[in-house]
Amino acid sequence: MASTRSVRPTPTAEIAGWDAEADVVVVGYGVAGAAAAGEAAAAGADTLVLEWTGGWGGAAALAGGFIYLGGGTAVQKACGFADTPQEMYKFLMAAMGPGADPAKVGPYCEHSVAHFDWLTDIGVRFNPTFYDQPGSVPGADEGLMYSGGENAWPFYDIAVPAPRGHLPALPPGATRIGERGGGYYLMEPLVRRATELGVRAEFGVRADALCVESDGRIAGVVATRFGRPWNVRARRGVMLAAGGFTYNDDMVGRFAPEVVTRYGAAIEQHDGHAIRMAQAVGADLGRMDGAEVTPGLSAQLIYRGIMVNGLGQRFVTEDTYPGRIGQAILYRADGTAYLLIDQRAYEAAPASPHERTSGPNGKPVPTWLSESLPELESLAALPAGSLESTVSLYNRHAARREDPVLHKTQRWIAPLESPYGLFDLRQPRRAFSLGGLRTDPHGRVLHVAGEPIPGLYAAGRCASGIPVWGYASGTSLGDGSFFGRRAGRAAAADG
Amino acid sequence: MASTRSVRPTPTAEIAGWDAEADVVVVGYGVAGAAAAGEAAAAGADTLVLEWTGGWGGAAALAGGFIYLGGGTAVQKACGFADTPQEMYKFLMAAMGPGADPAKVGPYCEHSVAHFDWLTDIGVRFNPTFYDQPGSVPGADEGLMYSGGENAWPFYDIAVPAPRGHLPALPPGATRIGERGGGYYLMEPLVRRATELGVRAEFGVRADALCVESDGRIAGVVATRFGRPWNVRARRGVMLAAGGFTYNDDMVGRFAPEVVTRYGAAIEQHDGHAIRMAQAVGADLGRMDGAEVTPGLSAQLIYRGIMVNGLGQRFVTEDTYPGRIGQAILYRADGTAYLLIDQRAYEAAPASPHERTSGPNGKPVPTWLSESLPELESLAALPAGSLESTVSLYNRHAARREDPVLHKTQRWIAPLESPYGLFDLRQPRRAFSLGGLRTDPHGRVLHVAGEPIPGLYAAGRCASGIPVWGYASGTSLGDGSFFGRRAGRAAAADG
Repeated sequence: MASTRSVRPTPTAEIAGWDAEADVVVVGYGVAGAAAAGEAAAAGADTLVLEWTGGWGGAAALAGGFIYLGGGTAVQKACGFADTPQEMYKFLMAAMGPGADPAKVGPYCEHSVAHFDWLTDIGVRFNPTFYDQPGSVPGADEGLMYSGGENAWPFYDIAVPAPRGHLPALPPGATRIGERGGGYYLMEPLVRRATELGVRAEFGVRADALCVESDGRIAGVVATRFGRPWNVRARRGVMLAAGGFTYNDDMVGRFAPEVVTRYGAAIEQHDGHAIRMAQAVGADLGRMDGAEVTPGLSAQLIYRGIMVNGLGQRFVTEDTYPGRIGQAILYRADGTAYLLIDQRAYEAAPASPHERTSGPNGKPVPTWLSESLPELESLAALPAGSLESTVSLYNRHAARREDPVLHKTQRWIAPLESPYGLFDLRQPRRAFSLGGLRTDPHGRVLHVAGEPIPGLYAAGRCASGIPVWGYASGTSLGDGSFFGRRAGRAAAADG
Repeated sequence: MASTRSVRPTPTAEIAGWDAEADVVVVGYGVAGAAAAGEAAAAGADTLVLEWTGGWGGAAALAGGFIYLGGGTAVQKACGFADTPQEMYKFLMAAMGPGADPAKVGPYCEHSVAHFDWLTDIGVRFNPTFYDQPGSVPGADEGLMYSGGENAWPFYDIAVPAPRGHLPALPPGATRIGERGGGYYLMEPLVRRATELGVRAEFGVRADALCVESDGRIAGVVATRFGRPWNVRARRGVMLAAGGFTYNDDMVGRFAPEVVTRYGAAIEQHDGHAIRMAQAVGADLGRMDGAEVTPGLSAQLIYRGIMVNGLGQRFVTEDTYPGRIGQAILYRADGTAYLLIDQRAYEAAPASPHERTSGPNGKPVPTWLSESLPELESLAALPAGSLESTVSLYNRHAARREDPVLHKTQRWIAPLESPYGLFDLRQPRRAFSLGGLRTDPHGRVLHVAGEPIPGLYAAGRCASGIPVWGYASGTSLGDGSFFGRRAGRAAAADG
């Protein structure tokens, strides 16, 4: 999928004529682009969005739809949770790093309630109800959920836990499976508002390279439209909002080779081209090795069992955020992981309506079943005695509902008893890239010399934002919409 | 230490006059710079080296001095080891990744014997003797050692093991401690030959930025000499050989935040400035998150005990390459690691003359001593029962001299028996960065558009080379000298 179009910048002196122009030109009509375009237009800028595909939405419209918001939103209050920007900041600095940027996390937390209010003002609806289960998707259409392991070890010791995953409500009568999800119901109001404010959009337009003035200012975009060159002048600024590099095998191989397979939260247009367009004018990068990774099994099962690596050892707190488990599988366990669960816990787990692979009982079926741990060790080619040793230690503490090893929440602790099931989780994983362009807190793309590149902005997953290595559900739609808005305002005021 | 000098390129049209010129201008007089300069001069190019410090040597002259060579060198043969480029390739592709580059590892292995012969031809001496112990430094002045875990799990299953760490011999009467090490005795012949071939060197010169022709060709270097601007024209090419970014806190924070402390194998001049100079003209980067990390304790002790993480679990094969253990401590164990050893094994371990911290018996003293594992768990704040559980499983297999969990070599397996010692290894670590500029196999720096940047070369740790994430001792001096030579030849033939 890596594009072969040249990313080399074109001097404006070499542009024979402009095919279109605007004050602010936005590349990509996903969450960051829609947020930026709307705010630029609201600030009085004539704004044009260039979108490669045939419609708006990007990866955002296909996403589950969590937006990470906190510090005391109306939904948090309605559900009885006290939260402050300070506790939100403590959590994000601990969970999004190493390398989380205080200059971004600070304003993101400080202005999170205002961002929530703005989203509801433009028409994003959140049901004021809380889903009290672990997992990735709420059971009904609750608007609030723990989405980052805030109430799991070690984070409950670092910051006062509060749920911050806010999920846009479905319209009456809609269901979440096989139809539009929360991401769509975030995007629709963002695009509607932008359109109402006069934002124009051109679809089927691929941005190829930046146009640069002789003094280094970014003045437009060289694009391809219906197979022909199409040059777009930007009087005030160009805003890159074209997603990450998940579908660029070369970049993945050089920067994040653990991200081997992917689908779902990234789309094929996330080919890193916009990142490289900016690199070609000297833009710097932020941490390029981070990835959001899904564990590949329902949280309802994971929390009730114990996760073990290829040595038969536990390696991650089972009741933390599923994405954190996915990362641990890749980075701590070299991609080799299993879930051990006993029959009682398996039967107690509710069927997940969102599970992609389900058995006849609505739940995935364990890869191996046995009454004996040594037999499971043999079936899964785990070191002899390793599961027995791990279960023995786990059970010794679980009998007192304690877990001094990985501090699973007491609610989910119970001794494991024969018969057992073992899930083989050595499967291709869904993942998407987190690294991207280095930007300042107003979305200005930074040159390797340290200063902003005049006229160039970026937000969303083509920028290095709130989640630099760690992740929580909602931080991509969260930082894409938050910093997209800031970048749109800054671009509108530029030049 | 991060430099505040601007890395923005200067158009040659703006250079009022050149203060010096040469066919090939080399930035940095460490191993890659010396190898490049000598080969450029040998090819007939008038060659000038710009070195920031007051003398040649760089980090290389301070290093232990291993050079990773194989495929059947004279020293390997004299020591009775059969090796082939194919087995060397298999090992490096497995051990230097994920992300190891076949286009570089291939020629590096294919021409490794020729590179060895060239080094001995110019006067680098290797004693044809083999040091048969694990560790980082040979006992006497042996010229050959295992330096990458080739004979440890899992690599002994991946490629036929052969030692490939070649160490330059000391002059008669010299000792290794407190004096010049093997790195010096590599550098001295490289620089002597370069000087004999007419290479000029200017010391106290800091390269600030690249000079660029209007067509994008690199034409020189803007530098600072004795506090004043100093412009150097390069008629054929500029070769960057100025080391990594270990001492640039900002780059470490953005690209490899685990590399928190460092000294030893990197020097303060490794501030990433040359990498940024090239990024400013659109150069691409290779995997930026890799680091060589030392474990902080003598291998002679580590191999005889078991390494455990903060959960009291084993996590790394104890008899592998120490740098691999250092990486595992950072990446697998979040920096929290301990060595458990029993009195019998402790007493059997020879004192290491190279150990920095030694007790009265010439060996480091364990942090905690106890006859009881539960007491050690309590002293080290490890989960209750975790050490007992780990030792019980280890001993069960060790009684038969087996280790199905981490496959320690039989030679080093023995049951652990009371009394015990536990070393706390939660200390600042020595580390240096591995990421850098993306280059082709001839040292040409690649633009993000994919093609070489005309006139620009790089090798050594400012480039992404053989060790992209994994490491073996000798791969930095190895790829610096090997690809430095190639870059020097390519630059001499350029333009």
